Amino acid sequence: MTTLTRRYRFSASHRLHAAGFTEEENRELYGKCNNPYGHGHNYTLEVSVRGEVDGKTGQLARPAVLDELVGREVLAELDHRSLNEEIAAFSGGGEGMVPTTENLAAWIEQTLQAGWRTAFPDGKPELCAVRVLETKRNSFELRT
Amino acid sequence: MTTLTRRYRFSASHRLHAAGFTEEENRELYGKCNNPYGHGHNYTLEVSVRGEVDGKTGQLARPAVLDELVGREVLAELDHRSLNEEIAAFSGGGEGMVPTTENLAAWIEQTLQAGWRTAFPDGKPELCAVRVLETKRNSFELRT
Amino acid sequence: MTTLTRRYRFSASHRLHAAGFTEEENRELYGKCNNPYGHGHNYTLEVSVRGEVDGKTGQLARPAVLDELVGREVLAELDHRSLNEEIAAFSGGGEGMVPTTENLAAWIEQTLQAGWRTAFPDGKPELCAVRVLETKRNSFELRT
Amino acid sequence: MTTLTRRYRFSASHRLHAAGFTEEENRELYGKCNNPYGHGHNYTLEVSVRGEVDGKTGQLARPAVLDELVGREVLAELDHRSLNEEIAAFSGGGEGMVPTTENLAAWIEQTLQAGWRTAFPDGKPELCAVRVLETKRNSFELRT
Amino acid sequence: MTTLTRRYRFSASHRLHAAGFTEEENRELYGKCNNPYGHGHNYTLEVSVRGEVDGKTGQLARPAVLDELVGREVLAELDHRSLNEEIAAFSGGGEGMVPTTENLAAWIEQTLQAGWRTAFPDGKPELCAVRVLETKRNSFELRT
Amino acid sequence: MTTLTRRYRFSASHRLHAAGFTEEENRELYGKCNNPYGHGHNYTLEVSVRGEVDGKTGQLARPAVLDELVGREVLAELDHRSLNEEIAAFSGGGEGMVPTTENLAAWIEQTLQAGWRTAFPDGKPELCAVRVLETKRNSFELRT
Repeated sequence: MTTLTRRYRFSASHRLHAAGFTEEENRELYGKCNNPYGHGHNYTLEVSVRGEVDGKTGQLARPAVLDELVGREVLAELDHRSLNEEIAAFSGGGEGMVPTTENLAAWIEQTLQAGWRTAFPDGKPELCAVRVLETKRNSFELRT
Repeated sequence: MTTLTRRYRFSASHRLHAAGFTEEENRELYGKCNNPYGHGHNYTLEVSVRGEVDGKTGQLARPAVLDELVGREVLAELDHRSLNEEIAAFSGGGEGMVPTTENLAAWIEQTLQAGWRTAFPDGKPELCAVRVLETKRNSFELRT
Repeated sequence: MTTLTRRYRFSASHRLHAAGFTEEENRELYGKCNNPYGHGHNYTLEVSVRGEVDGKTGQLARPAVLDELVGREVLAELDHRSLNEEIAAFSGGGEGMVPTTENLAAWIEQTLQAGWRTAFPDGKPELCAVRVLETKRNSFELRT
Repeated sequence: MTTLTRRYRFSASHRLHAAGFTEEENRELYGKCNNPYGHGHNYTLEVSVRGEVDGKTGQLARPAVLDELVGREVLAELDHRSLNEEIAAFSGGGEGMVPTTENLAAWIEQTLQAGWRTAFPDGKPELCAVRVLETKRNSFELRT
Repeated sequence: MTTLTRRYRFSASHRLHAAGFTEEENRELYGKCNNPYGHGHNYTLEVSVRGEVDGKTGQLARPAVLDELVGREVLAELDHRSLNEEIAAFSGGGEGMVPTTENLAAWIEQTLQAGWRTAFPDGKPELCAVRVLETKRNSFELRT
Repeated sequence: MTTLTRRYRFSASHRLHAAGFTEEENRELYGKCNNPYGHGHNYTLEVSVRGEVDGKTGQLARPAVLDELVGREVLAELDHRSLNEEIAAFSGGGEGMVPTTENLAAWIEQTLQAGWRTAFPDGKPELCAVRVLETKRNSFELRT
C-alpha cells in the first residue's frame, strides 16, 4: 500500500465564539481568537489517499481527479470566505459549529467522504488522512 | 553598515472594496478578494534596520527594543483583527484606504517611523525596509 | 479521534561524548559532534496530542494549556542552555545520558508525561507523539 | 521504539509514458508530464528507520552508516540522471516501469531493503518508511 | 516606490554542455550537470515590479495581469519542458546558449521585457528584478 | 550584471558576554543569550557574488570554486565549533569580539575577502553580500 499526499492552500476568516458561554467566558476560552470582528489565516490542507499502485499506469490515483474533487467540494467553498458567515455548518449562531480548525478538519473530511464516489466510483484509493495547518505552529489531523 | 532583519507574524482579515467603483467594477478589479464577507491571511512582516555595529556590545540594535516597538505599534494593532473594521486608516468606507497589502505595508512603515524615536532616541539604527508577505507567493516591500 | 500538533523552538548547545569509550572511539563514533568545546542547534519540537473534540467548544485541547505545560517543563529548561552542563539527566560525566537527540526526545517525552496531569487532570487529551528536529535533515520521533 | 528520519535531495528528469496506451491516451492520462522531451524535479527523499536506542551511545543508528547506504545505493544512481534513460527498472520501453513517483518510491524502498544488511548486518534498526516528495505539493510514502 | 514580488514555479530538465569544449573539458567544467541524459529541477521564479501605488485601487499592479504575462510568455514555454530540446535560445548545439540558470534568468528577463507593454501599455509598473532558484542552495538574480 | 547566491549551513555554539560590563549589565544587555554555559544555533549563510556571465560557459562563477573557498575558510572553521572557545577573533575575554551574529557576519565577510584571490585570481566575480541567519526570525546582512 502506498500513500499519496497532495497539498492545497486557501485563505479564510473566522471568529471563535461558542453559543452557551457568556461573552467573558468566550474571551477567556478563545483569547484573541474571540476578537469580535474576526481575523484570518492562510490555511494549508493536506489530503492523503491510500491504495494499490496500478501496474500499467504506475499511479495510485490520477492527481487531476483528486484535485477536481478537492477543488469543487472544499476549496471553492472555503477559499476567500468567511467561515462564520458563509459556510452553513458554521453559521447560524447557536446552531452551527464553532469554526475551530478541529471542526474545520472534520467538515473537510466529511465533505470529501460524501463526494468520494463521484471521483472514485469504486472507492479506490481510499481517503486516509486530512490535515489542516492553521499556522506554521498549529495543525490538526484526522485519520480515517 | 550592517542590516538586521527581524521577522514577525500576525493574522488578520480584510476585504478589498474601493469606494468610487461600482459593485461590478470592484468584483472585476479584486476578484475573489472582493468577496463580501472578507477572508484572511497569516501575514509575515520583515523589518530591516541599518546602522553601525557598536564596538563594545557587538550589536547593531537591541532586538528587544525593536521587538517592543513593533509589538506595541504594529502587532498589537493588527494581530487577530479585521483591517476593514478595526484599523482607522482602513475604515470608514469611502474615506479609508483599501486594505491592500501595498497600503498595509505603507501604514506599517509610517507607523514605525512615527514611533521610531520612542525606541531609538538618536534615530540610530535607521529603518531601511518593511516587507509584508501576504502569502508565500505575494509580497510587498518599501525601502526607505 | 483528532490529533493536534503544536510546534515550538529552542536553541541549545551540546557535545556528544560517551563514557566507556576512549577519546579516539568517541571521535570515531560521533565525528565532529564530538568536538571538545561543543556546538549547538536551533531545535524544533513538535508535540502531538490525541483525543475527542469537545462538542461545545470545538476544541481538542486549549492551546494555552498545552503551551504553558511545554513552556514550563521543557522550554524553560532547555532554551538557551547547554544540555551537557545544565540538564541533570545529561550531566555528570559517566552517569548522565549522552545528549543525543534520541535521548533528548526521550527526556522530553518523559518530562511531559510526568507533568501531564498538572495540565490535563483527567488525562485527556493524551500525548501521542514527540518529534525533535535537530536540523532540517535529521529528526527523531517517539510515539506513545 | 524511536524513529529516526533523515532527509536527502536529488535532481532527476523523467517522462511519463506507458506502453500499452496510445499517444493520445498517454497525453490524456499524464497531461504535461507526458511532454515528449521530459522534464525534471528536485526530489526530496525521507528515509525513516525504527529501533531501540543503544544505552551506551544514545543512538538508534549511526547516521554516517545510513547516509553511506542511501548515498551508494540510491543517490549515486538517481542524482542528476534521467530516470527513463539511465535506471534499468524504468528503461526499455514496454518492459520497464513508468517512472512515476509511486514507482520511484517503490524502487527506492526495494533497493534499500536489498542492501540493508550490508549496512546493518543484524537488521537493526529496521527501515520503516520511504517518502519521496516530487514537488512541495505532491508526495508519496511507503511504510514497511 | 513600492516593490511587489510574485513567486511562480516550473519544472524543467536540462543538460549543461558547451560547444567549443571537448567532452572531457565539459565534464570537468560542469561536473554531474554534464551527465549525458540530462536531469531536472523544480525551479522557483520570483518576479519583482516597482512603481507607485494607485490611490484609488490601493494597488501597484493588478496581480492577474502580471500572472497572465508570466504565464503566457514564460511558464507556458518552460514548464514541463526540456530546455535543451524545446527552447529555441538553448537549442541547436553550438549556436544556442548553454541552459545554465544564469542564461535562463537572462532569457526570462528579456522575454518579460519584450512582452511588457502588452501587459502594461504605459510601462508602469516597471520590471525591477528576476530571480531564479534552481535549488534551495543556488539562485540567480538580475536587477534591471 | 548577474548575482549568484549560494546557501550554506553550519552549527555552532556561543555565549554573549562583553568585557567592560558587569555581570548584571551583561544579563540585562543580552538576556538569555548571556546564560553562562552557552547555547547554539543552526546558522544559515548566504554568500552573493556579482559579475558578468561568461558567454562561452554561461556561468558567472564555477560553483565548486566558491564552495571550496567558503568550505575551507569559513565552514571548516565554524561548523560544530564553539565560537567563544575556538575562533581566535572571538576568544580571549576582553580582547576578542563578542560573538554576536553582527560580528560573525563581519568576520565571515573579512575572511572571504582575505582569501578571495586564492579562488578568483582576477577578482571576478566580486563578493557582494554576506547574510547570516541565526534563526528563522533574525538575520544580518553586510553588502560590500
